[in-house]
Amino acid sequence: MRNVKLILSYDGTAYCGWQVQPGRKTVCGVLREKITVLTGSEAVVHSSSRTDSGVHAACQVVNFRTGSSIPPPKIKSALNGALPADIVVVSAAEAPDDFHARYSAARRKYRYTVRNAPVRSPFDRLYCYHFPYTLDVPDMRKAAGLLTGKHDFSAFKSARGEKINRIRTVFGIDVLRSGEYIYMDVEADGFLTYMVRNIAGTLLEVGRGRLEPAAAGLILESGDRKKAGPTLPARGLCLVGVEYFV
Amino acid sequence: MRNVKLILSYDGTAYCGWQVQPGRKTVCGVLREKITVLTGSEAVVHSSSRTDSGVHAACQVVNFRTGSSIPPPKIKSALNGALPADIVVVSAAEAPDDFHARYSAARRKYRYTVRNAPVRSPFDRLYCYHFPYTLDVPDMRKAAGLLTGKHDFSAFKSARGEKINRIRTVFGIDVLRSGEYIYMDVEADGFLTYMVRNIAGTLLEVGRGRLEPAAAGLILESGDRKKAGPTLPARGLCLVGVEYFV
Repeated sequence: MRNVKLILSYDGTAYCGWQVQPGRKTVCGVLREKITVLTGSEAVVHSSSRTDSGVHAACQVVNFRTGSSIPPPKIKSALNGALPADIVVVSAAEAPDDFHARYSAARRKYRYTVRNAPVRSPFDRLYCYHFPYTLDVPDMRKAAGLLTGKHDFSAFKSARGEKINRIRTVFGIDVLRSGEYIYMDVEADGFLTYMVRNIAGTLLEVGRGRLEPAAAGLILESGDRKKAGPTLPARGLCLVGVEYFV
Repeated sequence: MRNVKLILSYDGTAYCGWQVQPGRKTVCGVLREKITVLTGSEAVVHSSSRTDSGVHAACQVVNFRTGSSIPPPKIKSALNGALPADIVVVSAAEAPDDFHARYSAARRKYRYTVRNAPVRSPFDRLYCYHFPYTLDVPDMRKAAGLLTGKHDFSAFKSARGEKINRIRTVFGIDVLRSGEYIYMDVEADGFLTYMVRNIAGTLLEVGRGRLEPAAAGLILESGDRKKAGPTLPARGLCLVGVEYFV
């Protein structure tokens, strides 16, 4: 059995996330169906990160095992011919036998995009959150710095918060402005459900002046989800990179 | 009656073009409905250009007359609150009584966007035409230069080609490369149906080496639609500017 690694790019708008769910359209479900048709047998597809409903990926790494001998460039072109326009295979390659898209991943990077302009735009509406108020980016950076490091991120979990181990290492949070856009890039070894969207919601509260930068540290320490900012919408979130252990 | 001028931006993907058509969703139809609710009376809405089905606008100028005294900034915010996410009012202002979005317009500029990269992207699929083959931009510019000026553009009309006067003045055609994108910007006093999409299709044939640059001039002279390149899809086309007689 060969181990095939793909890099995918997808617009998550029309999907109930990555993970296969019965009766729902998911990115993994659609991809798996096309792989089955192409290789002639069902495959288990692992991904670096299980993106939530409506979340996008510019760089999602996945792997699957197959007995088929179709060369990777042909896998790429055949899948791109079969997949809908909102899912693209950017590259395909044979991976070492022990490569696992999820367990071999050391770091994942997500970007949250905010359109910070008085008027919304019809062209980016699927890929950002429109926030018309003035934002203090240096204050947002101060708050972001307080969330960097190895911490219990219970204050930034989802309301359901099913995961038991809530300790994650955030390697860095960059807050960047480019024209009318504000990007919040969060890199970590892993994420709790909604963690990036809750961090981004909290940083916007700081940027707008509703919270002091220092409050971000206190919220983190409190472990209390109710103290953090709102969960921003899925459409602004995109998985932009994955790093693997060598 | 006041004369109100709006600048609109819209994603045309979900619309059967600008022009009102019974039983179909059109940009003008949706806008008119919101204006009626806001001002309390039906309005005739004129536009600088009647964009075709699926064509976008970054800058569409429109005007309508109203007896309502709602100030323009309030018209803008109220319409933006009522309009769907794919139509945005960028600005609203009171215009001189003789201003007519269509008849006062001296020049319109359309941009055709091509994604010129080996692999498509899921994020720009609604706003460009994916063309993976190598393009010779200097050759495209040579061909574009031959189409500039006052000519009978019958060779670039739609197959139906209902318009009788097919003489238009093209002020300029720019072919620009920016990263993976090729932009073809066409500025003219007016356009025949599909004219920009047919010119863009012909320039791609030149860029790919299937036609010599000089062929563009011969096609124009022939007046024969069958000699020109294919009509490119609507999704790559966007109305980007309008200039008015002072």
